[in-house]
Amino acid sequence: MASLAERLGHGPDAKLLIVNCDDLGSSASANRATAAAQAAGVATSATLMVPCPWALDGVRMFAGGIGVHLTLTCEYPGYRWRSLTGAASLHDADGYMPATAQAVWAKADLDDVRAECRAQIDQALAWGVDVTHLDAHMGTMQLEPRYLEVYLDLARAYDLPVRMVSAAGERRLGFPARERAADLVFPDHMTSTWGKPAKPTFADMLANLRPGVTEVYVHPVEDGPELRAYDPDHPQIRVDDFALMTDPELPAMIRAAGATLISFAPLRDLQRAG
Amino acid sequence: MASLAERLGHGPDAKLLIVNCDDLGSSASANRATAAAQAAGVATSATLMVPCPWALDGVRMFAGGIGVHLTLTCEYPGYRWRSLTGAASLHDADGYMPATAQAVWAKADLDDVRAECRAQIDQALAWGVDVTHLDAHMGTMQLEPRYLEVYLDLARAYDLPVRMVSAAGERRLGFPARERAADLVFPDHMTSTWGKPAKPTFADMLANLRPGVTEVYVHPVEDGPELRAYDPDHPQIRVDDFALMTDPELPAMIRAAGATLISFAPLRDLQRAG
Repeated sequence: MASLAERLGHGPDAKLLIVNCDDLGSSASANRATAAAQAAGVATSATLMVPCPWALDGVRMFAGGIGVHLTLTCEYPGYRWRSLTGAASLHDADGYMPATAQAVWAKADLDDVRAECRAQIDQALAWGVDVTHLDAHMGTMQLEPRYLEVYLDLARAYDLPVRMVSAAGERRLGFPARERAADLVFPDHMTSTWGKPAKPTFADMLANLRPGVTEVYVHPVEDGPELRAYDPDHPQIRVDDFALMTDPELPAMIRAAGATLISFAPLRDLQRAG
Repeated sequence: MASLAERLGHGPDAKLLIVNCDDLGSSASANRATAAAQAAGVATSATLMVPCPWALDGVRMFAGGIGVHLTLTCEYPGYRWRSLTGAASLHDADGYMPATAQAVWAKADLDDVRAECRAQIDQALAWGVDVTHLDAHMGTMQLEPRYLEVYLDLARAYDLPVRMVSAAGERRLGFPARERAADLVFPDHMTSTWGKPAKPTFADMLANLRPGVTEVYVHPVEDGPELRAYDPDHPQIRVDDFALMTDPELPAMIRAAGATLISFAPLRDLQRAG
């Protein structure tokens, strides 16, 4: 069977790289950083947190492909948001989305989850977003088998490709996520800079880039009092990813690795043509 | 009949001053500025924008009396929020609260308005706020006769005093708001620094302070990229109010004017005592 790269019209050895900025719309600083990451010629894609107060601003600012970052959690201590649908099972005792995926899995009604995710995708479409794909904030829709089924059902309903754990990640996950998604289009490989030194990790990823489609996701945010107020726990990861995305050496490093930058749009078009 | 000041246990000539910070919870910068205004010994009261992402953080930060700033509008171009109840009549074409009071009045269903306001008050109470009074963001609940009736009904239902237009303001308003609220407790006089030079306006207000209860409301926000990103239209009004609230001369100016600072709590207790 032809590889994904071949089905996308590339050679069998092509190395196709999607650089996705998670958390578009999460703050003004995230929107500015994500727009800058695209303008720098590195980020090709971003995923939108529809429930967040800066979401529509993010849509207006970002010129790359935009997917929906399905959001059921709200992890910051002071900066909080609610679901679009208002179902009680989606909120914690303070009336906001819970802080962790575990808290969602323990409390949320799966029908409420499905309705909320549909509302988020529908809102992005209503804003005029040409939605390219789905992924999920903090892995909430992917790291639990029942939620994965809802995630894949939504991808089928809207005919969208998805972020998918790598084969190595799937072994850690303990259930056959990639097999369950076999009827959908998704990248061959997935990686991230989260929690690791940004530039060495990205350089290492490039040095070991395999043929096929790789998604690497990052979380760029401009440093400043806004970020420092809302994310006291790991602001530096975001600041470092912003520095990485706008590092003037990065486009040449990507070229030297033989990588071709793409967004999820061709994957979506392939899926829909299929 | 005894004056409000007398019913509050003061002499007939007492000048009682409530300094209320509007927009608590609207941002991290507003919360820090509002807390500082209270710590400086000037602000005694603040009103909370429950739908905003920083609302619960604001509750935790502010040590003065807290009322509910009933919020049906969302006036910023990039930073947006939704209702708690999700009724379509409360949202604009982008799915957020509309930018102006006029847009609310033109579209909202009054039953949806009532339910949303109840949800905001109930959420504040559920957060443990000892709610002292009601007012309304951008005057939406006070400047239109049908909305005023809902506002006063809510004040009766929760047995809370209200912000009320001054007699001069009522003449401009063109309907007898104060008379409609005759069964409720509200300050005798109301004024604000909005759109005027903050310190001269405040000094003038103090120089002309009349006996009775005066509410003056301000909008302090810390300057910085967060404020500049969300309020491109009038950041300086907010920055100037923050400078005013933390001006080291202000407590002495208030004392020299013979004013006694109070919050809405004694007005609420008076109302509840019947």
